[in-house]
Amino acid sequence: MSENKLIIPRKLQGFWELMPRQQMLFSSLLDKIETVFQQNCFVPLDTPVLEYSDALLAKSGGETDKQVFRFTKGDTDMCMRYDLTVPLARFVSMHQNELSFPFKRYQIGKVYRGERPQKGRFREFYQCDADIIGNEELSLVADAECISLYEKCFKALDIEIEIKVSNRKILSGFIQSIGKEKESVAILTVLDKLEKIPFEQAMERLKEIGLNDKESEKIIKLTKICGNFEEIMQNLNDFCKNELFLTGIEELKTTNEYLANLGSKAVTYDMSIIRGHDYYTGTVFEVFLKDGKEAVGGGGRYENLCSYFSNKKMPGVGMSIGITRLFDLLVAKDYFDLSKFNETTVAIITFDETLKDGLKLMSDLRAEGVKAECLYESKSFKSKMKEANRRQIKYVLIVGEDEVKEQLFILKDMETGEQEKLTLNEIISKLK
Amino acid sequence: MSENKLIIPRKLQGFWELMPRQQMLFSSLLDKIETVFQQNCFVPLDTPVLEYSDALLAKSGGETDKQVFRFTKGDTDMCMRYDLTVPLARFVSMHQNELSFPFKRYQIGKVYRGERPQKGRFREFYQCDADIIGNEELSLVADAECISLYEKCFKALDIEIEIKVSNRKILSGFIQSIGKEKESVAILTVLDKLEKIPFEQAMERLKEIGLNDKESEKIIKLTKICGNFEEIMQNLNDFCKNELFLTGIEELKTTNEYLANLGSKAVTYDMSIIRGHDYYTGTVFEVFLKDGKEAVGGGGRYENLCSYFSNKKMPGVGMSIGITRLFDLLVAKDYFDLSKFNETTVAIITFDETLKDGLKLMSDLRAEGVKAECLYESKSFKSKMKEANRRQIKYVLIVGEDEVKEQLFILKDMETGEQEKLTLNEIISKLK
Repeated sequence: MSENKLIIPRKLQGFWELMPRQQMLFSSLLDKIETVFQQNCFVPLDTPVLEYSDALLAKSGGETDKQVFRFTKGDTDMCMRYDLTVPLARFVSMHQNELSFPFKRYQIGKVYRGERPQKGRFREFYQCDADIIGNEELSLVADAECISLYEKCFKALDIEIEIKVSNRKILSGFIQSIGKEKESVAILTVLDKLEKIPFEQAMERLKEIGLNDKESEKIIKLTKICGNFEEIMQNLNDFCKNELFLTGIEELKTTNEYLANLGSKAVTYDMSIIRGHDYYTGTVFEVFLKDGKEAVGGGGRYENLCSYFSNKKMPGVGMSIGITRLFDLLVAKDYFDLSKFNETTVAIITFDETLKDGLKLMSDLRAEGVKAECLYESKSFKSKMKEANRRQIKYVLIVGEDEVKEQLFILKDMETGEQEKLTLNEIISKLK
Repeated sequence: MSENKLIIPRKLQGFWELMPRQQMLFSSLLDKIETVFQQNCFVPLDTPVLEYSDALLAKSGGETDKQVFRFTKGDTDMCMRYDLTVPLARFVSMHQNELSFPFKRYQIGKVYRGERPQKGRFREFYQCDADIIGNEELSLVADAECISLYEKCFKALDIEIEIKVSNRKILSGFIQSIGKEKESVAILTVLDKLEKIPFEQAMERLKEIGLNDKESEKIIKLTKICGNFEEIMQNLNDFCKNELFLTGIEELKTTNEYLANLGSKAVTYDMSIIRGHDYYTGTVFEVFLKDGKEAVGGGGRYENLCSYFSNKKMPGVGMSIGITRLFDLLVAKDYFDLSKFNETTVAIITFDETLKDGLKLMSDLRAEGVKAECLYESKSFKSKMKEANRRQIKYVLIVGEDEVKEQLFILKDMETGEQEKLTLNEIISKLK
């Protein structure tokens, strides 16, 4: 490369990167979620971004394979993680004899998808996951805890949501009752799209799968059942006598009771909630913004986290917040007040002969937790005031020779224009 | 894959992964460092882990190329970042017209090195970086701030360190004064190894480079100058009349004054500090544990962050804490008390008929910030007590039918064995 040839600075397409104050806002959301996870006695994990390809791709179909960043280095075939669940399964399998069960872990981290970049889809994005893993068995308390955890996270974020809960055994039980277990995946695929396709088309597809009109109508009717717990129970009672179906209802009932004990308020029930993942087998839930109805995540119960790694049965229940997408949604709605986020509370304005006094003052203020910054780069008083303005710093502190002599400094509120002469201690107690 | 063929769960060699309570400890260190960065008015950046290869490898020599995880996806040639500095340069170049300068950013993130795994070297590890970037120029206040920031971070971590400071212009000026500028890199390479090779061998190598014995002795003498500021100034005065040398001394003097204003206490001066990186041109510093003398990081001043991306001159000064290595060092020294880290403060022990009351209590306690956990999975009272013990949970709260009736619960301190009957509010004020 010749000395003067410059490289155009670009970031990779589909990769997310925030400007500093947006990042401060985003980080504050992650912090709030993490605090809730910790308050609820989940432990942190921080697994590597890279995993052996055989481990990472064990449970995935061909679709995931294509979407993965995979490469070899030396003899090692490795992938960047595409979710936080497979790394969890790998970790739990490796350490099953050292961990306490139920094992409650959270992980907040980036995941990678090699898919073509498009609006609302990123190739690198954050997930906030919390899972509870049992050893051989796991109480439905865990299901209620995960749902309630979701609610608490959004309460901490000050975002109103609605959580729609179902139990996969209900639909599966009905499908079993009409003898169509083998066609289950195809049926669920149609039902998952009911909102997007016309009724006639759904009926047609179910017919192709082998359901008669009565069965099709009944299963569509089943997915329409929603409301609070009493409402859905009225509709579900006597709907079907299949054992799995009844187990699903019993589980939903118990989960509902536990949710009440845990103080949950944002839950309704909706039998159309399926959740794409094949591996959910019991409780499933999906979360929607109250304002706008967009889905922002969900979770559910799975039979066995570690089936690809271990013969031990480890049932689990988990939740995931797609925080990158949520953030983008809310930024588009102008939901956040970015002006609250400023790295500096007070700009210290010095003159040539008082720079060192200003630095001392800055050091004293910072030691007390006040975010103070000496504007040492701007040259004149005027340019320093301009800089403070441009940076939208709320206060300036003027430190001239007289102020240093008297140890009384002029604090000016840049919003109101008010100013007062204060001692260091007075400044600290005002700004802290 | 056949149904029963299991994959052995393994993590990639050289990749770091902590057990949950170690992770709690490690995360607490990151939090403390981040808080210090924020208190000192640095803004966060979170650049993607992947970058275009041409951008990432622009400034690196062949050595870095080999150590990088590089691959193509579609038509795109990309790399995992191997440090946080090149992504910063890319970001600052892209956004130079939107950012305020001096631009003070921190980034705490993982970086990747494809080198062969060995003791103390990881292929994925955390770096905690803070840099101050100027537009065309940057005051020496920034140098003092970065050094002082290092000191504050370690104060927050409660780890004693010594920071050794020098200025590269001093050595470079001397090399200039003997007319050996072209051999500068070779000379510095020898001087950087002085502690590891015998004096005679160093003399021999310098001779090969073209220095006569007098010059070699003098430059070695120069690198031996160390101590507090007054001590080194006595030895540096009249050492050399070269202009660059004298500028270096002036800069060191000014930096030392600013450091005093910032309340720095851990700094000494040491002319042997060189810092491998070619690009340091002024202030350089290296940080050592007081207990054991191991180097744990450092930083310095560079002429131009963005030379590969932009014609604008952007001088900067930065510091980096190799927190993964530091953590490993301190764990090996048994420095940390892991018993302080428990996700749960109080285990709630219920009976079949009081589980729901226990859940309500758990919910109330958590809402008040008390990390309470119902042991709902263990079956008998005895097994619940065992579980609390095994998990080293400090308190258990016994919730039987009588306790629920009276709303007085038995709180037992598992360390002392003491127990008392308390109301919910009393429990909250005791455990909060």
